[in-house]
Amino acid sequence: MTAPKIESVDFFYLAMPEVTTAADGSQDALVVRVRAGGHEGWGECEAAPLPSIAAFVCPMSHGACRPVADAVLGAKVETPDDIRAIAAKVAYDSMDLLQAAHTWSGIEMALWDMLGRARGVPAWQLLGWERAYPKTPYASVLFGTTADETLARARDIRSKGFRAAKFGWAPFGASVEADADQVAAAREGLGPEGILLIDAGQIFGEDVEAAAARLPAMEASDVLLFEEPFHGHAYRAYGDLSKRSSQVRTAGGEAAHNRHMAEHLIDFGGVGFVQIDCGRIGGLGPATDVARYAAERGVTYINHTFTSNLALSASIQPYAGLEDHRICEYPTGLSELAVDLTRTRIAPDAEGLIHIPDGPGLGVDVNPEALETYRVDVEIRVNGDSVFQPPST
Amino acid sequence: MTAPKIESVDFFYLAMPEVTTAADGSQDALVVRVRAGGHEGWGECEAAPLPSIAAFVCPMSHGACRPVADAVLGAKVETPDDIRAIAAKVAYDSMDLLQAAHTWSGIEMALWDMLGRARGVPAWQLLGWERAYPKTPYASVLFGTTADETLARARDIRSKGFRAAKFGWAPFGASVEADADQVAAAREGLGPEGILLIDAGQIFGEDVEAAAARLPAMEASDVLLFEEPFHGHAYRAYGDLSKRSSQVRTAGGEAAHNRHMAEHLIDFGGVGFVQIDCGRIGGLGPATDVARYAAERGVTYINHTFTSNLALSASIQPYAGLEDHRICEYPTGLSELAVDLTRTRIAPDAEGLIHIPDGPGLGVDVNPEALETYRVDVEIRVNGDSVFQPPST
Repeated sequence: MTAPKIESVDFFYLAMPEVTTAADGSQDALVVRVRAGGHEGWGECEAAPLPSIAAFVCPMSHGACRPVADAVLGAKVETPDDIRAIAAKVAYDSMDLLQAAHTWSGIEMALWDMLGRARGVPAWQLLGWERAYPKTPYASVLFGTTADETLARARDIRSKGFRAAKFGWAPFGASVEADADQVAAAREGLGPEGILLIDAGQIFGEDVEAAAARLPAMEASDVLLFEEPFHGHAYRAYGDLSKRSSQVRTAGGEAAHNRHMAEHLIDFGGVGFVQIDCGRIGGLGPATDVARYAAERGVTYINHTFTSNLALSASIQPYAGLEDHRICEYPTGLSELAVDLTRTRIAPDAEGLIHIPDGPGLGVDVNPEALETYRVDVEIRVNGDSVFQPPST
Repeated sequence: MTAPKIESVDFFYLAMPEVTTAADGSQDALVVRVRAGGHEGWGECEAAPLPSIAAFVCPMSHGACRPVADAVLGAKVETPDDIRAIAAKVAYDSMDLLQAAHTWSGIEMALWDMLGRARGVPAWQLLGWERAYPKTPYASVLFGTTADETLARARDIRSKGFRAAKFGWAPFGASVEADADQVAAAREGLGPEGILLIDAGQIFGEDVEAAAARLPAMEASDVLLFEEPFHGHAYRAYGDLSKRSSQVRTAGGEAAHNRHMAEHLIDFGGVGFVQIDCGRIGGLGPATDVARYAAERGVTYINHTFTSNLALSASIQPYAGLEDHRICEYPTGLSELAVDLTRTRIAPDAEGLIHIPDGPGLGVDVNPEALETYRVDVEIRVNGDSVFQPPST
């Protein structure tokens, strides 16, 4: 019998009727379906949909700037090594196509899902883990516009049974005093036992002094980690801040679009926590490599995700087997689109813990109705040929 | 009088009738025209055209994943600081849109061209240099499929008066012995006085031993630099090889899509030469920052370019004022498209030196006929609206 080959890769671009400038990444989605040898798998890019689709279907520019489709369609996919071989081909043949990493991430995820479904085993097992440990979810929310609003949000999170919460983005960064009030409000609302995380949303660029000025208030409120104080590539700034901060550890990595970037943030940025988005870094394979790399160096791995439960399940697979890496980003306040996208629901159990779904692959069933309800109609034509239209469900 | 605002940004996607898998980046082009307050400027992205266009026109995904157009159209552009302010806005508002850096690079280039034309001064002057020094061009060619072919190419380059040449890409990497033959052939054809550069085209991934095994042959042939032995992000591999190589210096940086990446290659990768493509790094501003950063650290800056003379002029502006940084990538064997694209020609003088064009801005006139002759007809429709069509010339 010949090995199954990838027959189709379909991109479903979905969006809420209205998309706002809020830092809410669940307002649209790019869902990927792959099919090979009678099997099917699903993934999700954490990416701008239109440029990501374009990176799959675009005409070739030259030998090192080929569309992602060229490395994927028709490729053999029977084992985990096959997925890694396709990844290497994408990285080399599309090295000059910047968006390729985001496009490939959703496809790679779908390939693990498909392989797991074909074999009847969960993706984390294919990734080399012996078992999947439960995680402690932190509710991931935006700061309120005032400290009072933040206090109310923190109380609400606590009342819902969460042991941990992350507050992020504007107005954080406004002033040292206002930021201190915000952090104190979050701590007050969460109670003394809660695990508190702060996400600066890159607001300090590469200004180490500005970020360091926020440390005393964070130490006073027993903040566990200080996420993305800087531009995702500013490793020197991370390194300098990490040296000045012993109690509150720096965290970052969500912008990593390859394994190297995450490793550099550990090696040169000195982060205590590395946060990986499988929908950007190239999928589950490189994310798992980073999890092992982090664990060997005493750095804690955390998933990064702020979209659907499909992306959530994918994001936990790479560190499912690391028992001591316990906390897990758990987006609350998802858009209707992101909620409707999956029939499977991942929710905290009675003890407040998250369990990776049992089923094969990613263990998440996509809801075909949502693919219709939220569909964005995109057509791309090149020299008279239609190179992309929405796939049928 | 109110400051001029950016009224339009037009993308011209051009391609040769047939595009092959050769590592020849001049087979297509994405040319950018900006207009503001009665002035006009031109730039060129070094990027896959369709995804780059999509990154300009795509619907917003959320506040940190906005189309590049949102930060550009309507922005004030009267001074160099205005260009830097738009760059910062693109970097922040489009932080999750990976392709944005490539899209923005061509726009940024066009803004310096426009500002220079409006003021009647060359772009390098706006970038802070007092004068523009001539450069020694190296002919940039691919290795022959055999060492004999490479020998013939090197002799041809020498006969054309070039003092320096770079040979690159496959079959380099095939085997230590075959690579040694190729390097020796290049040296023989170029003569003992010629400056010889080798470009591995990332073929060794992050395999330091494989790359190091090529050093003895390169030392024997007095190779000046060893370009891109590794994946553009593999700083540790660069650092390890740089420590093992004293005579032949490592070189890289063309993949840098922001200033940080180039600085890291210097700080962590230990390169002796940093090679920047203005069509990828975000344009002339960040490239000039890297040139100054390199010069302060004893690292030599080199332009990276393999497309038209518009891109070539742009690529030299950021280090025009660095007298001791003398060598300059000069693509030979451009496609007809890349030749036809400009009316201005940049060619070595009687002494074999390259001079940056005299005119204001980038000093290069685009040929409007080429914009028609090589036009790729692209249309992008979103929910029934046409969001992109080829602009009129």
